[in-house]
Amino acid sequence: MIVIEETLRTFTQNIFLKMGCSEAHAKLAADVLLLADLRGVDSHGVARLTGYVRLWEKKRINPNPDIKIVHETPTTATIDGDAGLGLVVAPFAMQVALQKAGQYGSGWVAIRNSNHFGIAGYHALMAVEKDMIGYAMTNASPLVAPTFSNERMLGTNPMCYAFPAGKYPPVIVDMATSAAANGKLEIAQRSGQQVPEGWVQDKRGNYTTDPHALKSGGSLLPLGSDREHGSHKGFGLSATVDILSGVLSGANYGPWVPPFVAFLEPSSNPVGVGIGHFVGAMRVDGFRPVEDFKSNMDIWIERFKSASAIDASQKVVIPGEPEYEAYHERKKNGIPIVDAVVNDLNELAVKLGVPQLI
Amino acid sequence: MIVIEETLRTFTQNIFLKMGCSEAHAKLAADVLLLADLRGVDSHGVARLTGYVRLWEKKRINPNPDIKIVHETPTTATIDGDAGLGLVVAPFAMQVALQKAGQYGSGWVAIRNSNHFGIAGYHALMAVEKDMIGYAMTNASPLVAPTFSNERMLGTNPMCYAFPAGKYPPVIVDMATSAAANGKLEIAQRSGQQVPEGWVQDKRGNYTTDPHALKSGGSLLPLGSDREHGSHKGFGLSATVDILSGVLSGANYGPWVPPFVAFLEPSSNPVGVGIGHFVGAMRVDGFRPVEDFKSNMDIWIERFKSASAIDASQKVVIPGEPEYEAYHERKKNGIPIVDAVVNDLNELAVKLGVPQLI
Repeated sequence: MIVIEETLRTFTQNIFLKMGCSEAHAKLAADVLLLADLRGVDSHGVARLTGYVRLWEKKRINPNPDIKIVHETPTTATIDGDAGLGLVVAPFAMQVALQKAGQYGSGWVAIRNSNHFGIAGYHALMAVEKDMIGYAMTNASPLVAPTFSNERMLGTNPMCYAFPAGKYPPVIVDMATSAAANGKLEIAQRSGQQVPEGWVQDKRGNYTTDPHALKSGGSLLPLGSDREHGSHKGFGLSATVDILSGVLSGANYGPWVPPFVAFLEPSSNPVGVGIGHFVGAMRVDGFRPVEDFKSNMDIWIERFKSASAIDASQKVVIPGEPEYEAYHERKKNGIPIVDAVVNDLNELAVKLGVPQLI
Repeated sequence: MIVIEETLRTFTQNIFLKMGCSEAHAKLAADVLLLADLRGVDSHGVARLTGYVRLWEKKRINPNPDIKIVHETPTTATIDGDAGLGLVVAPFAMQVALQKAGQYGSGWVAIRNSNHFGIAGYHALMAVEKDMIGYAMTNASPLVAPTFSNERMLGTNPMCYAFPAGKYPPVIVDMATSAAANGKLEIAQRSGQQVPEGWVQDKRGNYTTDPHALKSGGSLLPLGSDREHGSHKGFGLSATVDILSGVLSGANYGPWVPPFVAFLEPSSNPVGVGIGHFVGAMRVDGFRPVEDFKSNMDIWIERFKSASAIDASQKVVIPGEPEYEAYHERKKNGIPIVDAVVNDLNELAVKLGVPQLI
């Protein structure tokens, strides 16, 4: 089913309003989810709406958070999200980072006591719009085992860097630090397909191609898949995200990060508060004139696009380019939503007493 | 052959003095190389000394650089390294970052017109000593192909994050963004072994296990090895390093980065000046009290060390831990140097008229 952006946006705002969010927060939270759908990152858009609602029902999401700076210097800050939606806490934090960067060249904010923040790219792009370099990451429910372990110790812990360009779209590196995202396993489960070796291991730590392995005590593998191919690097990146987001902010980290799914209870002995994020911004003109940077970004992009292709039909993909194309296509033609998600959303509408999607 | 640290240090300083470096620069450059050898990163220690000398002979390294800040804000700066040794340019830049961080909470420095800077960890550790989080990266000679390409477009572009801990050694994530470092191929070449699939491709872009493939027009693969296992993420990380180090600073980037080996000429149409680095520091107490952070880092480390092991004889390795152990062992018992390197260094000594190593 294809849904026009505005229909989906209004629907999503209505749900957040019913949760008790303010008008401004409902609008912002919907904007973050919609950007994921527009950019083709369907796993992080409105498909997650029921998940947020379930956490709210469990009182694990506070719809009216008092988001506060609890510690700061001219260019750093720690924010307590008061158990609010990450979808509103992270943009608040990014505004603080942007304001500091505007004044001092850069700004960096660690966030604790938050929840799932949607796509990292949304927050990093807030910097790009101001000719800054954006940076956003978050820790997440433990699903990934470190190299040599079969225990779920880390989330898929995404990191995002976003760089403005000139005549081309911004370069946006927005990636889970695991070999494959959980969403890819879910697709294989639905279609009854096996997954490639190197994505997941069973509970004993043996490679498996069974997409259901995660549900039977298995774990995802870090980027690199095995030690020989650099899984210790994927583990190191994921650890970096966990330390900046969790340890630095005073949030939970590692296996203590509260699960996104409402049917799993958070740890009864937490090491911090909620989940953690880390965002930042640096002014491009803190380093060189913006126009010089942008014209060199254009050269960079053109040179990489024209790199010799192994297969002439598949050129090098600039990070962020496919999402940019999806955005313009979906802005114009609407957003495809799979039937299962449409049904979920309509059930949600009935439950909360808002108009159904269709 | 085992060489006592001080012997190797004096030898290395003598070589840099003969190149015309000042006493202070010779001492600093030797310190950077020695730390690599002490930490067991043999590929980036004195084994590289002949490489630096050859670049100096070609007048591509300036032994008396006038290292200058060419652009700055309170927390950002761009430095021109005046074609100096990266081994002295990067520590200069890190001092600028530390000074800014001391005053404003964080400091970020992009560097152009530099050369190979040794191990990224040296520079990041300068921050850890001051209870800051350290950050260091550099672009490098093109050897790595982006996903879908068979053209060498990127260096092994390492990134490093360093975090202070309490009773444990600092956590140091210091990694090439390729699946395997070139040094691992060289080891396989010397021993006549094949390498695993997923490290290197031949000039047509086919996987190969031939460790000599790089010399016959092949290329290294990004972390993730192939698209299915996330090589686009390794490419994205490498691109991030290239943009921050090269495009932001005004250095060369992508395939224009000047080669480290003196027998290859730099591009005659450069897009910037020399090679680029990017370093930064954030004060831990810009986010939370140092003791809180360190005690939580200790909990993080203990929890990860005790994660369930697939094989009881191989526990999870904390990033930076093996190098820390090597450091203390080699400080005490000396540094093993392979015969080929000893011979190289002694030939160098004869050529430059300094006492031989042994």
